[in-house]
Amino acid sequence: MSMTNPATISPAQPSANAAVLRDDMSVRAKLVEATLDSLLPPTTGGDARLIDAMRYATLGGGKRLRGYLAVETASLFGVPEQQSARVGASVEMLHAYSLVHDDLPAMDDDDLRRGQPSTHRKFDEATAILAGDALQTKAFEVLAESATHADAGVRIALIAAFAAASGAAGMVGGQMIDMEGEGRALPLEEVRHLHALKTGCLIRYSAESGAILGKADPDLQRRLRSYGANIGAAFQIADDVLDATATAEELGKTAGKDEASGKSTFVALLGIDGARAEAERLTHLAIEDLAPFGAKADRLKALAYYVIERRN
Amino acid sequence: MSMTNPATISPAQPSANAAVLRDDMSVRAKLVEATLDSLLPPTTGGDARLIDAMRYATLGGGKRLRGYLAVETASLFGVPEQQSARVGASVEMLHAYSLVHDDLPAMDDDDLRRGQPSTHRKFDEATAILAGDALQTKAFEVLAESATHADAGVRIALIAAFAAASGAAGMVGGQMIDMEGEGRALPLEEVRHLHALKTGCLIRYSAESGAILGKADPDLQRRLRSYGANIGAAFQIADDVLDATATAEELGKTAGKDEASGKSTFVALLGIDGARAEAERLTHLAIEDLAPFGAKADRLKALAYYVIERRN
Repeated sequence: MSMTNPATISPAQPSANAAVLRDDMSVRAKLVEATLDSLLPPTTGGDARLIDAMRYATLGGGKRLRGYLAVETASLFGVPEQQSARVGASVEMLHAYSLVHDDLPAMDDDDLRRGQPSTHRKFDEATAILAGDALQTKAFEVLAESATHADAGVRIALIAAFAAASGAAGMVGGQMIDMEGEGRALPLEEVRHLHALKTGCLIRYSAESGAILGKADPDLQRRLRSYGANIGAAFQIADDVLDATATAEELGKTAGKDEASGKSTFVALLGIDGARAEAERLTHLAIEDLAPFGAKADRLKALAYYVIERRN
Repeated sequence: MSMTNPATISPAQPSANAAVLRDDMSVRAKLVEATLDSLLPPTTGGDARLIDAMRYATLGGGKRLRGYLAVETASLFGVPEQQSARVGASVEMLHAYSLVHDDLPAMDDDDLRRGQPSTHRKFDEATAILAGDALQTKAFEVLAESATHADAGVRIALIAAFAAASGAAGMVGGQMIDMEGEGRALPLEEVRHLHALKTGCLIRYSAESGAILGKADPDLQRRLRSYGANIGAAFQIADDVLDATATAEELGKTAGKDEASGKSTFVALLGIDGARAEAERLTHLAIEDLAPFGAKADRLKALAYYVIERRN
């Protein structure tokens, strides 16, 4: 994918755009994957079983939505891919750790992830807990490294925003609320809040990270942050819809789990059509956020459609 | 404790030194405790149960050895306590997270910690996993904050060293080797390596952090790093000896657990007297590391004796 000659995507042709986006995501997913592979410790760098589990949990698939967002938003400001891919890999490590811990028997108790045994099923619970712990550490370590070629102030800003998105007032706080809400009917606003924390914060950070790396002016940084928050919310609603309508084969994980576990979802509150309409509303807000970037942001616009149209 | 008029400790009078050190540790433990209390989120900052668990796991006791080391080594370079106490609090958060996860049923399965129910017994497993996760995040967040009053370069150096000490090639790697070694007889060098990772890396970082904060020249930084590594190793051997000789009441946790679980320890390999002699040897190495600091390091010398003479 050349950055000097980006493929153009016309917002008037969403289906043509989707094909271009898909190619672009596939190229960048490979870049993020290769970066992850180079950043994760080799088995000679520590305990082999622990590192095997870290690699198993992180490598080998996924859409790399968060990594893509980091690389694509950074490219708006001319940040080289080699630099932004490390930030994208760091977010993907944090995302992987959260999936490993969420799948544990004491949490969501899920045996399947991306069509494969979840990490504690492939290894064991203790190894999965420790692999998740070490992946979180590694995600912060990568951001601190001088190899990002960002100055120390930029790296500190990335770390601060990343920690805020991941911790008790972000992703982990959202997972906690999610656990506590099982079997109870939550009102719409609470579900919205829970989603904003659990999946929204990290997607928002991914979109914002490019602006931090690119030292964007505050208005543009705020707009990418808002874009990320909107597609993050749309993404989660689309996930709820998929859980209710797709097969396990399409999802690569257990389907129909939300209803079975009594989780409050947008589908439960608004019905499938209502949830789809809400996701579309958020997609349009996300596209409005991108207005100042013009055609440079066409792929990010296509991505906003993609998150609600995907089948897995 | 005034920094301009430090209590003097003569290395020739270890028992008198011990009393002065104990007072000093007690004063600084209160400082670190107050700093932790101010840094941990208030229950209005997120999910109340999660934050309760984070606070339960972190506040209310412990010797704060790691926090003390951060504050005391920083004072060698004139770094204000308000600044180093935040670094000390960050290490204590990371230490607390590691204890919460190590106590889990899938790991060491320990019901008691500091004489109180361990976090998963007081709350539940899911909450304990998430509280540990969020404490790790918070530890990194604190180091990134401008409130440390260190420049961005110093903060990045702290974060990089912290991550290296905590991750797969540090504390978490050590815990993994420890888990895998249960029920197997490990040779002395492997036990040494396991201890260096599991507890040594974080104690070493704590001692080194003052030198990083104080922008010490490389030789002094290396000496504090070595001092930390040596007392860390001595500390763990003393822990093994205590586990074999002290009561649960003295320890505030289950005693005799190492032997029961078939863990390889220095006591198993060298006997109680041999283990004590090894701890003393390391203590003397630690005191040699401090030579260039002269009388300014008297409390750190007393601490090296303290770690092997303590009863809990």
